Amino acid sequence: MSVIYNRVALIGLGLIASSMFWATKRGGLAGHVTGYARSQDTRDTARRIGLCDEVCDNLIDAVKDADLIVLAVPVGAMGAVAAEIGPHLKPGATVTDVGSVKRTVIDAVAPHLPEGVHFVPAHPLAGTEHSGPESGFATLFDNRWCLLVPHESSTAESVAQLRVYWEGLGANVEEMDADHHDLVLAVTSHTPHLIAYTMVGVADDLRRVTDSEVIKYSAAGFRDFTRIAASDPTMWRDVFLNNKEATLEILGRFTEELFALQRAIRTGDGDMLHDYFTRTRSIRRGIIEAGQDTDAPDFGRSKLEK
Amino acid sequence: MSVIYNRVALIGLGLIASSMFWATKRGGLAGHVTGYARSQDTRDTARRIGLCDEVCDNLIDAVKDADLIVLAVPVGAMGAVAAEIGPHLKPGATVTDVGSVKRTVIDAVAPHLPEGVHFVPAHPLAGTEHSGPESGFATLFDNRWCLLVPHESSTAESVAQLRVYWEGLGANVEEMDADHHDLVLAVTSHTPHLIAYTMVGVADDLRRVTDSEVIKYSAAGFRDFTRIAASDPTMWRDVFLNNKEATLEILGRFTEELFALQRAIRTGDGDMLHDYFTRTRSIRRGIIEAGQDTDAPDFGRSKLEK
Repeated sequence: MSVIYNRVALIGLGLIASSMFWATKRGGLAGHVTGYARSQDTRDTARRIGLCDEVCDNLIDAVKDADLIVLAVPVGAMGAVAAEIGPHLKPGATVTDVGSVKRTVIDAVAPHLPEGVHFVPAHPLAGTEHSGPESGFATLFDNRWCLLVPHESSTAESVAQLRVYWEGLGANVEEMDADHHDLVLAVTSHTPHLIAYTMVGVADDLRRVTDSEVIKYSAAGFRDFTRIAASDPTMWRDVFLNNKEATLEILGRFTEELFALQRAIRTGDGDMLHDYFTRTRSIRRGIIEAGQDTDAPDFGRSKLEK
Repeated sequence: MSVIYNRVALIGLGLIASSMFWATKRGGLAGHVTGYARSQDTRDTARRIGLCDEVCDNLIDAVKDADLIVLAVPVGAMGAVAAEIGPHLKPGATVTDVGSVKRTVIDAVAPHLPEGVHFVPAHPLAGTEHSGPESGFATLFDNRWCLLVPHESSTAESVAQLRVYWEGLGANVEEMDADHHDLVLAVTSHTPHLIAYTMVGVADDLRRVTDSEVIKYSAAGFRDFTRIAASDPTMWRDVFLNNKEATLEILGRFTEELFALQRAIRTGDGDMLHDYFTRTRSIRRGIIEAGQDTDAPDFGRSKLEK
């Protein structure tokens, strides 16, 4: 690997940015990496664990000489950060982000960036249920997708350079239109997260009835939901507020289907249930064939066997 | 380990029964194990892979000399099997089952068992998304729960013996009342499965719109749902038809909560979302403390790293 950007600035030092730092070091992809977080605690932790070559106490110091600025803050905070850094960016620099929603981020960030700065929105499809500066690791992006959503201020060169950088971080890179991105992610990520949060909330209410049994016997399916529903609350609040239309549309389809299944249970329509469950089973095959998971029997087991 | 039952009969040779066989052999828990499956194909496969000491072509032959008879067929088929074997059971034999629902299984099976036969319903909380005679493995029950739901025909001795057998298979054993079992499982397993099936069904419809993108980008949360929704359709049809009331009650609570969150998204109530997601995050901590999962960052990764 060789240096892709001389100076990289990571704004927001959570799971994604800290993983980007370790992966950048692993690949030797940057000459110098600065970092900034709004919280003094986070900056102290970053210094203690050696996260970033230089942790800045000031947002402007972190970005002013950077060739690549990565906005890795919650989606709802992107606009304010962009407004603050806009006047201090180096001509020819590239600004990117890692937000899970693209349309509202583009609308919030782009107006604040000066001419001559290239905006290349991005979204790495990677994460764990942990958050914070100590949760990152160099292999987070290996063999994961990173979606680039070029903006009109992107030049072909700036997009190509960011692609090479993300490939250096371990990701497979694709380009996608912003609105299409937000719809696809509403299906594959945002709505499943909301449903998992809801199911865990229901169980939490019932915990007072059934004491600790919900937790004790969680391995039967519920446990997978709790892992999803343990993700960062601020990040996910912002995702739903910023991908409102697509999420509500998919939720509408979801409740429609759920009511159809509920009705089949109530009326005892076993054929409808069996047909439905047979159809959904086949989609699993597609995921394994696409290399997005293995066929190893795993349900509720691998976590304890490690 | 020593022999717990001289002769064990496994009726239905799917994931659970085949795993019970391999775990029984591992522990030396039975002198002789017979097996029966309705399908000739399944019996042929069982013979080919050495599943059971003896595969019988006739249900009665499999059970007539058995000290323990394990009903490992879908919940909806339990009653018919019990009716057929009832007159041929050895006095003093124990009948158990492995169904995911207990009340309707007890109501369907118990009337067919003669006096002097002990019925000890059971439910091992273990499984994978695979099914069939070749999907079993000896470690499936290690460190998993097995719930015993003693029936009025159970003697203390027959319950104690079955407990020792399940412990020998690797499980941790608890006793529970049938109705309470069905409610707890509706929360921890049945409703989560129905929701996962629904979400995968929605995505399957949309797949025609977004081509293969739903699968390609499934790692972002959706993939965990597909694993759950790949479970055996017949088994799950019968679960929902036989735990109708508890499942519909939990589903009612679920949609109520989901509508509250949907409304918060629509009205932009970020505080409500943030509070909700913070609360659900804490339940995860309880699961880790209860030893039902590890704290290792795992979301969407471990399957590919194996």
